[in-house]
Amino acid sequence: MVAKFWLKAVMLLSGLFLISGVQANYPTVPSETFEALGIESDVTPKQLYDALVKRYKDPEQGAGPGSMAEYWEPIPYSQYLDPATFYKPPTSVTDEVDRKECVECHTDESPVWVQAWERSSHANLDKIRNLKPNDPTFYKKGKLENVEKNLRSLGKLGEKENLKEVGCIDCHVDINAKGAAQHNKDLIMPTADVCGACHLQEFAERESERDTMIWPNGQWPDGRPSHALDYAANVETTVWAAMPQREVAEGCSMCHTNQNKCDSCHTRHEFSAAESRKPEACATCHSGVDHNNWEAYSMSKHGKMVAMLGNEWNWDVELKDAYEKGGQSAPTCAGCHMEYEGEYTHNMVRKVRWANYPFVPGIAENINSDWSEERLDSWVVTCTQCHSESFARSYLDLMDKGTLAGLAKYQEAHDVVEALYEEGLLAGQKTNRPAPPEPEKPGFMIFTQLFWSQGNNPASMELKVLEMGENDLAKMHVGLAHVNPGGWTYTEGWGPMNRAYVEVEDENFRIREMLALQERVNKLEGKRTSLLDLDTTAEKISLGGLGGGMLLAGTLALVGWRKRSKSEG
Amino acid sequence: MVAKFWLKAVMLLSGLFLISGVQANYPTVPSETFEALGIESDVTPKQLYDALVKRYKDPEQGAGPGSMAEYWEPIPYSQYLDPATFYKPPTSVTDEVDRKECVECHTDESPVWVQAWERSSHANLDKIRNLKPNDPTFYKKGKLENVEKNLRSLGKLGEKENLKEVGCIDCHVDINAKGAAQHNKDLIMPTADVCGACHLQEFAERESERDTMIWPNGQWPDGRPSHALDYAANVETTVWAAMPQREVAEGCSMCHTNQNKCDSCHTRHEFSAAESRKPEACATCHSGVDHNNWEAYSMSKHGKMVAMLGNEWNWDVELKDAYEKGGQSAPTCAGCHMEYEGEYTHNMVRKVRWANYPFVPGIAENINSDWSEERLDSWVVTCTQCHSESFARSYLDLMDKGTLAGLAKYQEAHDVVEALYEEGLLAGQKTNRPAPPEPEKPGFMIFTQLFWSQGNNPASMELKVLEMGENDLAKMHVGLAHVNPGGWTYTEGWGPMNRAYVEVEDENFRIREMLALQERVNKLEGKRTSLLDLDTTAEKISLGGLGGGMLLAGTLALVGWRKRSKSEG
Amino acid sequence: MVAKFWLKAVMLLSGLFLISGVQANYPTVPSETFEALGIESDVTPKQLYDALVKRYKDPEQGAGPGSMAEYWEPIPYSQYLDPATFYKPPTSVTDEVDRKECVECHTDESPVWVQAWERSSHANLDKIRNLKPNDPTFYKKGKLENVEKNLRSLGKLGEKENLKEVGCIDCHVDINAKGAAQHNKDLIMPTADVCGACHLQEFAERESERDTMIWPNGQWPDGRPSHALDYAANVETTVWAAMPQREVAEGCSMCHTNQNKCDSCHTRHEFSAAESRKPEACATCHSGVDHNNWEAYSMSKHGKMVAMLGNEWNWDVELKDAYEKGGQSAPTCAGCHMEYEGEYTHNMVRKVRWANYPFVPGIAENINSDWSEERLDSWVVTCTQCHSESFARSYLDLMDKGTLAGLAKYQEAHDVVEALYEEGLLAGQKTNRPAPPEPEKPGFMIFTQLFWSQGNNPASMELKVLEMGENDLAKMHVGLAHVNPGGWTYTEGWGPMNRAYVEVEDENFRIREMLALQERVNKLEGKRTSLLDLDTTAEKISLGGLGGGMLLAGTLALVGWRKRSKSEG
Repeated sequence: MVAKFWLKAVMLLSGLFLISGVQANYPTVPSETFEALGIESDVTPKQLYDALVKRYKDPEQGAGPGSMAEYWEPIPYSQYLDPATFYKPPTSVTDEVDRKECVECHTDESPVWVQAWERSSHANLDKIRNLKPNDPTFYKKGKLENVEKNLRSLGKLGEKENLKEVGCIDCHVDINAKGAAQHNKDLIMPTADVCGACHLQEFAERESERDTMIWPNGQWPDGRPSHALDYAANVETTVWAAMPQREVAEGCSMCHTNQNKCDSCHTRHEFSAAESRKPEACATCHSGVDHNNWEAYSMSKHGKMVAMLGNEWNWDVELKDAYEKGGQSAPTCAGCHMEYEGEYTHNMVRKVRWANYPFVPGIAENINSDWSEERLDSWVVTCTQCHSESFARSYLDLMDKGTLAGLAKYQEAHDVVEALYEEGLLAGQKTNRPAPPEPEKPGFMIFTQLFWSQGNNPASMELKVLEMGENDLAKMHVGLAHVNPGGWTYTEGWGPMNRAYVEVEDENFRIREMLALQERVNKLEGKRTSLLDLDTTAEKISLGGLGGGMLLAGTLALVGWRKRSKSEG
Repeated sequence: MVAKFWLKAVMLLSGLFLISGVQANYPTVPSETFEALGIESDVTPKQLYDALVKRYKDPEQGAGPGSMAEYWEPIPYSQYLDPATFYKPPTSVTDEVDRKECVECHTDESPVWVQAWERSSHANLDKIRNLKPNDPTFYKKGKLENVEKNLRSLGKLGEKENLKEVGCIDCHVDINAKGAAQHNKDLIMPTADVCGACHLQEFAERESERDTMIWPNGQWPDGRPSHALDYAANVETTVWAAMPQREVAEGCSMCHTNQNKCDSCHTRHEFSAAESRKPEACATCHSGVDHNNWEAYSMSKHGKMVAMLGNEWNWDVELKDAYEKGGQSAPTCAGCHMEYEGEYTHNMVRKVRWANYPFVPGIAENINSDWSEERLDSWVVTCTQCHSESFARSYLDLMDKGTLAGLAKYQEAHDVVEALYEEGLLAGQKTNRPAPPEPEKPGFMIFTQLFWSQGNNPASMELKVLEMGENDLAKMHVGLAHVNPGGWTYTEGWGPMNRAYVEVEDENFRIREMLALQERVNKLEGKRTSLLDLDTTAEKISLGGLGGGMLLAGTLALVGWRKRSKSEG
Repeated sequence: MVAKFWLKAVMLLSGLFLISGVQANYPTVPSETFEALGIESDVTPKQLYDALVKRYKDPEQGAGPGSMAEYWEPIPYSQYLDPATFYKPPTSVTDEVDRKECVECHTDESPVWVQAWERSSHANLDKIRNLKPNDPTFYKKGKLENVEKNLRSLGKLGEKENLKEVGCIDCHVDINAKGAAQHNKDLIMPTADVCGACHLQEFAERESERDTMIWPNGQWPDGRPSHALDYAANVETTVWAAMPQREVAEGCSMCHTNQNKCDSCHTRHEFSAAESRKPEACATCHSGVDHNNWEAYSMSKHGKMVAMLGNEWNWDVELKDAYEKGGQSAPTCAGCHMEYEGEYTHNMVRKVRWANYPFVPGIAENINSDWSEERLDSWVVTCTQCHSESFARSYLDLMDKGTLAGLAKYQEAHDVVEALYEEGLLAGQKTNRPAPPEPEKPGFMIFTQLFWSQGNNPASMELKVLEMGENDLAKMHVGLAHVNPGGWTYTEGWGPMNRAYVEVEDENFRIREMLALQERVNKLEGKRTSLLDLDTTAEKISLGGLGGGMLLAGTLALVGWRKRSKSEG
């Protein structure tokens, strides 16, 4: 723990430091990224862009269908989720079309997206150029100048040329395209690097998540969890690759696609920055049974204040000015998660400590490490925009300890079921436990069982405890992290975990009651036939190495880690 | 599948066709309705109205308390749900009152509804008449002219007379009433035909749902599901009629009352069209565990964009102009479901293919038929307002195949429980399975068991699989249909179905494990007493015809269908 | 039942009565409060304030950590939940600071709260003084005059002095402080009495909840449930005091803190009255699995109308003018719950009849008493602002009877599980039922089991029925009370209760099937060993007094009542 005074001093010093020259060109891009890319921080835009794109497109570093590609087939819709790998232009339109014809034809074909584009900054660059300093969106003028600087560095814009517009052809064929393109050949669906050619700063910030999300003891693979590697996290998950129901699996990809493209937050084709600053922009992905960030936040006082008062705020001001100039009086997702030590960037993982999943091995053990305490101190900077330091620290302490209380309850229930498994006593364990599909391997309480089941694999209580960790405990932490008391106390979190524990104990009693009776009948029959055989089988399974230490081996985090370590190793 | 080009050509042709004279009077009313009513499409408003009202009020065609009326009694509140059948004016007010006195007295008695009415178009007809063409609500002027044309045709308005206002007395006694009415005798609660006297086009469009929602192989009764016959669907459902808890049953009616009246979407007494265009207008009914349309939509990117941006749109423009003139950039419920081949009408079921319930027999089998493909093509027209055709088709393909994947998982779990039932092994099946109340008949996995239970009827796993089909699979499809990944992948849909399957398999194991032990004890006792007897009973039940083919016999759809086929047959 | 005419007459008479002098000084404070405090209704502000504060701070009347304080320790965050008991100023700032310095320093330290304050009425008293009568917030001018009158009576403001501002120091040290304060000694977190020095009327209204929420037959302790005693309700609940997981327990306190402070509804530091009038202001606390008021309301047509239309209303007008002058056409939480007989006050419990929990003994039995009928009549006054009396009464009748139907279903399931408990047959009941932590006592289906479990205490079905009453039945009533059909019919309420009943009956069958088999094996073994012993134990437990009449002894309500009756007795 560092007192807030020192934090502020450090921030001031690092500000001076910046002015003195280091990283002056890209002050919002962390030094870790330049180190990782092996370039200096004063490189040209082209040099930075090229280095970023090289890594971005490298299959060894997370691009594309990943190491389990042989196990699954894309469906037609997959081309919109990983366009770099799968997109093919429609063959029905064979024309060669120019900048103007794109717009004309699509005004008929898909009018609403043209209308949205017409409202965008992309279609109104001159309006941006003419902004006056007192306009809340004046900062966009500077952004545009940077965009043109980047394009000049990339050789995409003449030294004295101004960008006239960003139309269909610029993103879907080539930026600042002068001529015509073959619709059935040249058409692309823009990936993040396409956006990054203009928006280099944001692209670099975002890609820096790979470099700053490095866990001290390998709790998660390097660079994860993050937006920058979320598609890799998806395709490197065994059950995702193994499921024959591709339409269900690609449901996961629909969110796990920020690595590939930017339109989850910046919806096409208006690309309204104001929209992407609103909490609802994050809600469609950060919600649901295993990461209910939206539910927790939107039902918190923070979220409700935004709902009540937000219409009176100016969402057009830059994020950093939201409180002071925008009139904002309660935090949004972006307001807290894009902030780091007073700066707002597209790297959203620099304060990650719990990563939503307290049961992932190593996370809880690490929570009081220096690494974690530094990140806690960064949170204090965030919270003290609105709260006192003692308030902030006492609440963050409540959050950590509450999460640990939930983890302990989870562990109790887990141990009961694991003992049953080790004794071979789970329902159908000895008789009807088919192996999961390739490339998954059989195991106890593996992530795969959340989405795959056959016969008695998994057993009901095995799935119950898996969900207790993956869902209830995650929700408990998320409720705590977003100051939503019902979210950790009774509606989500502790209450449901208490219930799950009770069911597990009930089942434990029933199973052992049945076993005792079976043994009495065995004795009456004067033999220990089938049961004996089965016990032997159970021993074999147990000896096969599926003990307690393996408990979490199959979770999303570690599955991903293993595959990644292979593919990157 | 028809390529979009051809669809557009067909639309154009049908447009020309309309101009050439056919259906010229009521271009938005489908020809099927004129055929069903046995009238030409160029009849007078009075002729159309009379034909519609005759059918609307016909008990043989769905009006009133239905074929199970002998089994249930209305409660006091029922008079507001089916006013035509049950409403009685209060006896406390015996005055004779005129147009002005209604308003005066209710300004004291129920001031807020008077204030709402004062803001309505009904109270401001002259304002409508004076609208200028550049006003976004200018279209209302045309509507008013049509209303007056209808009233003249009905003889309710003089040839040169203008409607002065629509006040209390016009809807609650008689349109354009000149004199006074007896409050305790003449007062009515307006039914859809009362609204339809003025709003004939909308009434006819809405009633046309009876004629266009005709399933090729009788999956659902003719004209259903629809708003036009939703009260019939209610009162013809066995459990609705059978339940002694009338306050619970009438909870269903509170939504199933669009057949009877219009104020579920057009809330009294402001009747704001802008309000009824918003997604929240549909939410109160289209939500919940068995038809979570609102939840799926509002958590989708579509819904969240409306939430984020909607305040900047002009909701006063006519629905057809919402995108272009209203500035709308994401779809609402009305925007997609009221649209058909480019037209917006009150018939919302012309593109229905899955009807929310994929397990209803015949639906899935029909999903690639010409009938269904044509409707899919109509969806492509809808989606390509904002998306490319290949995007739209690939997504709709994902939706269909994902739904089928869910159906297959449901069927697996179903078959396990059905086998238990056929063997008489469900908990308490042989000893404590009371018959449901009249007019319901005993059965396996019948819709009634969602709302009625006694002793061991239903068994827990029987109810589990019933809910799996009625709720989880429905939510899975709805999530897919509304582009809400968590809605079919993990939070709703596949994840919960996976869990349900696991519980069913667990129970299957336990039941058979117990049976095996019981048989060993039987053997030790040297007899097969009670169990043998029970097996015989089970056989009898099974012979009684409750096998697999009957599985869904009790579901809402088919229960309804049977009763309807009787009453209409 | 009293006809509405008479209600209105009574209201008129009581209005005249007020004008004639009685309670003229504090017309919105119920006479019960003056009686309870032993003062006349024409006392000075100081006299009223002193009497209120004396009671407010009295540990014998609900202040502070309560009668179980020896069992629990505060956590650091507790100081913000019960500041009067636990708050200590930070030791890090040792300066002596004046009015101006507070603001200056915190503009750096916690800028957003200073910005919020700058927008508040507190920081703009002159603006309030200069309001013109046609301003919708003109009423605030009168409020300010009252505030100054109160402060003069308290000797905190000179006779001719005007209050200049309400800044940090006024609430966090002393109102109208002229000098400096020691930051590490004098700093306080404002409790309700601090707000009440200025806002005496609101404080007195709020404190009057203690005096008007008196149940005719002791269903709940005097003055509860209410905001005024919600912290006492918390700390007097056994499981709250007993839980070692203090971070979970204090999650409950985060809402149960209205007794201690006012900022749950009036969020610091803007204290926008408009905000606190919106339904979302109540949502963070009145939501969740055991009191889902927000979910029920926000999904009702009432709630959805506010969501759709609210942006066009003027939320700045005083609550009593919301409909007429604010343009409001659908009810908010405050609109119905703060209203009583046409007046709007901070006493929100004068129409409470069911108190959310229909299973609390005495509530249902009382529902047709004169006491309850009078409160129903008051609801009719509320509802007839927008609805007819016959509509209102028929709906309220539906609400009552529907709730009773749910209660009956609950009772059926309860009795099945209670019989198992009395026979000692619940899972693990005889072998693995550890006692709950002190100060809780062992019991059947006690409230504690919702948050505490160990071994087989509670059994799964015991918890199921406990949740059925505490959650499902509560939600069923709340759904009925907030006109949300899915909230009592299928999604919440009846549907889930039907499911719970089915699971209970299934378990009952399984337990007795197992018992029967065990007895057959006993017989085969020629002995009745362990089971006999256990039966004896069960008898002992049963004789210990944990029979049916005690069923609800452990619920929140009654636990509270017992402790309260001790501490106040």
